[in-house]
Amino acid sequence: MKDFELYNPTKLVFGAGKVQQLGELVKPYGTQVLLVYGGGSIKRSGLYDEVISQLNSIGATVHELSGVEPNPRLTTINKGIDICRSEKIEFVLAVGGGSVLDASKAIAAGALYDGDVWDFTIRKAVIQKALPIGTVLTLAATGSEMNGNAVISNWETQQKRGLGSKLVYPKFSILDPKLTYSVPKDQTANGIVDIMSHVFEQYFSLTTNTPLQERFAESILQTVIENGEKAIDNGSDYDARANLLLAGTFALNGTLPIGVVTDWASHGIEHEVSAIYDIAHGAGLAIIFPNWMKHVYQERIDRFVQYAVRVWGIDPSGKSDEEVALAGIAATRAYFTRIGAPATLGELGIGGENIDRMAAEATVFGPIGSFKSLDKEAVKSILTASL
Amino acid sequence: MKDFELYNPTKLVFGAGKVQQLGELVKPYGTQVLLVYGGGSIKRSGLYDEVISQLNSIGATVHELSGVEPNPRLTTINKGIDICRSEKIEFVLAVGGGSVLDASKAIAAGALYDGDVWDFTIRKAVIQKALPIGTVLTLAATGSEMNGNAVISNWETQQKRGLGSKLVYPKFSILDPKLTYSVPKDQTANGIVDIMSHVFEQYFSLTTNTPLQERFAESILQTVIENGEKAIDNGSDYDARANLLLAGTFALNGTLPIGVVTDWASHGIEHEVSAIYDIAHGAGLAIIFPNWMKHVYQERIDRFVQYAVRVWGIDPSGKSDEEVALAGIAATRAYFTRIGAPATLGELGIGGENIDRMAAEATVFGPIGSFKSLDKEAVKSILTASL
Repeated sequence: MKDFELYNPTKLVFGAGKVQQLGELVKPYGTQVLLVYGGGSIKRSGLYDEVISQLNSIGATVHELSGVEPNPRLTTINKGIDICRSEKIEFVLAVGGGSVLDASKAIAAGALYDGDVWDFTIRKAVIQKALPIGTVLTLAATGSEMNGNAVISNWETQQKRGLGSKLVYPKFSILDPKLTYSVPKDQTANGIVDIMSHVFEQYFSLTTNTPLQERFAESILQTVIENGEKAIDNGSDYDARANLLLAGTFALNGTLPIGVVTDWASHGIEHEVSAIYDIAHGAGLAIIFPNWMKHVYQERIDRFVQYAVRVWGIDPSGKSDEEVALAGIAATRAYFTRIGAPATLGELGIGGENIDRMAAEATVFGPIGSFKSLDKEAVKSILTASL
Repeated sequence: MKDFELYNPTKLVFGAGKVQQLGELVKPYGTQVLLVYGGGSIKRSGLYDEVISQLNSIGATVHELSGVEPNPRLTTINKGIDICRSEKIEFVLAVGGGSVLDASKAIAAGALYDGDVWDFTIRKAVIQKALPIGTVLTLAATGSEMNGNAVISNWETQQKRGLGSKLVYPKFSILDPKLTYSVPKDQTANGIVDIMSHVFEQYFSLTTNTPLQERFAESILQTVIENGEKAIDNGSDYDARANLLLAGTFALNGTLPIGVVTDWASHGIEHEVSAIYDIAHGAGLAIIFPNWMKHVYQERIDRFVQYAVRVWGIDPSGKSDEEVALAGIAATRAYFTRIGAPATLGELGIGGENIDRMAAEATVFGPIGSFKSLDKEAVKSILTASL
């Protein structure tokens, strides 16, 4: 185990109807509120009205930024920053899925920065202060509800980059499983893949002697695998939705990476694909991750054997380590297919025309990944296998 | 799954030599520091000198409260409170095991309360404010390093009671596995039992549909079982000590009880035993817990079957649920015995003379436990089985 620090001050408020606590949760932070959301789904579901009613109950003045994209764009974020500055916003409230939350974090940091918020993503500046934010989550996927990370897209340059700071941890996040009932099957599947991928990035590690972190990771994977299919079969299965939501939060709330060197190469590769093609992040990960696994598993076959046996229940008797490891990877692909996630870029109409460019962008700061270091050629190879 | 809130603002700083960050960690809170510790072990180990050197480096004025007992006493805590008031203490620094940490929490809350700190334990008052505290942990056991709970003893009345508040979460806790190298085998064993017991109290629950919480609990138990024996065999096994330390923290940092109705009857019973006989908490739990299990397992045999199969690897084929459940309980007792923990009160020289009184005290606020509600007679029965 490596040395580590663990600190996560986000307060989770979990359960059906917990939006009724929103007013009280926002109150300590002020009355000038920027409400950030995506398309019209929160209006159709009635959630928007509930949120407004809660904010009215504390006498808040509500300004709105709607239309946040699935891959949230810098242009939209800059609109939010402008509102924060002109309206002296005191609190940013994100209502939606991971993209709305990520946009809100970027807005909260950008509002108090005398420069371009994109600077935070290209290592030109470090977040020094940020407006407080809170979230009402409507999708089990990104884990953004309990961490200080955000991924945003610059559509002009077709770049997708991350920013992060302890200062943009949500002060609170309301997680109501019922708010995820209306998530369609394909988005539920993308969320499942996203959650599992977050675990993979932290579980497939060269760090040794981390039995608790490994078992926690396996716990999340097993919970997602069991409950993911249930949630897809019946979107209104409270327990399945609740377990998925909780697993999604713990997959990326800082519990798994303690004392572990994490990887994140597959996310880096996927970001380049969705930066150009604007595909759903989960769909891109479903395509890429099993190919990453096949590319790297020999670096530490014991971890892939453990994964196959503990997570997928593969019986190792009479099989070589190689066979067990590959069976685990095949089980991963089979599960993704079973929940309706794509297996090839071709299924999304993406050909090989930009592979060189995507591989170059993914490795613009040098080779990526720690489980196996991937240079541009290695990334091209994984992308080519994903066609 | 039940509704829940999760909030834990303690910052963990984990790794060898991290005491070197102590000065910087204390600095934001002031310079009038009360240093709380137990016997002389931190002086013998050199830790005391390191701590003083760190506090000197930030110009702190250090006041000391030493001699905190293994079951920390109200009289000692009141001495600490007096120092806080007379010396205008700004920060309480606990250096030691769970009892030192618990005493420090009581001191931090009592210092800012116009009344007897014991009031917090008998539901006469609620903690409204507290001095900030920080900890340097020297023993894997109580989990006090990352929660807002404390257990203190009133030796005059022979009562042992708990207090708790979000306000006494440590601001930081330094966890250096090497600081636990010198813990003797019997105390290591008591710590192991304490950690496992914390998990049991939250895992043996009537709440259904909590697969993630159950697997997290099983993860902690398996990690403790594997690494506990290693740490006892070789006290200087860094990885074993590190894994035990981390497992101990997660056993009681608020992760396991989310969405779950917890029990805590066995702790209640043990507190009455150690209130009278001043035995080590872990030793008392080792004696009582398997007897509690035998008393209650039929309330929900599927959970005990799951425990036996997943945690102890018991093969259920050809066995009845009853047999599997009992095999899991027997494995628990066998493990406790293997690490040198006592199995009967008799081994500690305790007879049946106070059973009626202990059972009455344990149920003074009414029946205890949620997995199976235990009245005075039930507690007597468990204590009698423990003789």
